[in-house]
Amino acid sequence: MTNKEVPNIIIGRLPLYLRTLQQMAGQNRRVTSSQELGERLGISAAQIRKDLSQFGEYGKQGTGYDIPFLIAQISKILHVDRVWDIAVVGSGDVGHAVARYQGFTNRGFRVAAVFDNDPAKIGQKVGNFVIQDVANLIPEIRKAKIQVAMLAVPASQAQGVTDLLVQAGVKSILNYAPISLNVPAGVRVQYIDPAAHLQMLSYYMD
Amino acid sequence: MTNKEVPNIIIGRLPLYLRTLQQMAGQNRRVTSSQELGERLGISAAQIRKDLSQFGEYGKQGTGYDIPFLIAQISKILHVDRVWDIAVVGSGDVGHAVARYQGFTNRGFRVAAVFDNDPAKIGQKVGNFVIQDVANLIPEIRKAKIQVAMLAVPASQAQGVTDLLVQAGVKSILNYAPISLNVPAGVRVQYIDPAAHLQMLSYYMD
Repeated sequence: MTNKEVPNIIIGRLPLYLRTLQQMAGQNRRVTSSQELGERLGISAAQIRKDLSQFGEYGKQGTGYDIPFLIAQISKILHVDRVWDIAVVGSGDVGHAVARYQGFTNRGFRVAAVFDNDPAKIGQKVGNFVIQDVANLIPEIRKAKIQVAMLAVPASQAQGVTDLLVQAGVKSILNYAPISLNVPAGVRVQYIDPAAHLQMLSYYMD
Repeated sequence: MTNKEVPNIIIGRLPLYLRTLQQMAGQNRRVTSSQELGERLGISAAQIRKDLSQFGEYGKQGTGYDIPFLIAQISKILHVDRVWDIAVVGSGDVGHAVARYQGFTNRGFRVAAVFDNDPAKIGQKVGNFVIQDVANLIPEIRKAKIQVAMLAVPASQAQGVTDLLVQAGVKSILNYAPISLNVPAGVRVQYIDPAAHLQMLSYYMD
């Protein structure tokens, strides 16, 4: 079903559709429309229909989308019809918040391990996790077969830790360090840089 | 200089160019090229030249870009040649991390106030800030003329707080709550939703 040629910008909207549908399902809703989804998301109904049509025929003219069915379909497309374990590297303020973050439930991910290089932190607990020594990162990640990591280390250490994660077999990295990472083909990075997001807003301010 | 018609996707790359140039400047570099910027960012040199040409003529054939000059120009375009005060709403794990985040320095923003609605937290300190009662949000934000906010409250409270922020005169909101916000024309929102970012990665995983 998944077509690897679908533009990245469409892939980027699928999590928003899924999140909104899950919120509707949480309110015991059964059916929605591209119009309603569009209003909630500030995206045109035509765009939503076009995006979803890349993957199949999910709505019926006049009756709209079956919410549980569409949730199941988009979850399959995004490969979150399973739960992925995540390794968090760095247990400063950001790593701490990420390790304890409650927002992954039902969205396909769970934190499974937390690493740091600070002897004062190793062995301490963050949320339910004992902070492990980053020196053991490669064997621990391999043993646990973890393929997803969140990087919350200082910019100066981010590339070095990334190289370890890649060696350990990690395929997806969510990077909170404000630096662009070099990764080999087959490894993907998404960036969370609050200052960069804010600059996209200040562009429009006087 | 700023052309409001520039596509959003180009605006989204300017903070990455600026960040990379600032890192180069921090290493006492004076000159770079679209090739080098492209290699650091995983963007083609042609794309970078095309993006920058939307705003002016910044590079010279054969000599590349003057780093301090280009930093000054992009800072002006993004309106971060000044410092914007930010109000943080919500002082849970995410709000706490955001309020203490060191990554805004030299990037055009600084946290100026933190709000919460929890009586146990109001009056406590987070970083250098005394947590203020969200009941005073509108007068405090108006008094301080704050136009930028970071929203780190539960999804169930996010729209209500957003309505207060809009009333208070906030024009830009960075939203960490996993919900789409309704805002009037003239107010813009950027979203940070780690689960959505991870789902953009798991799409490509088997």
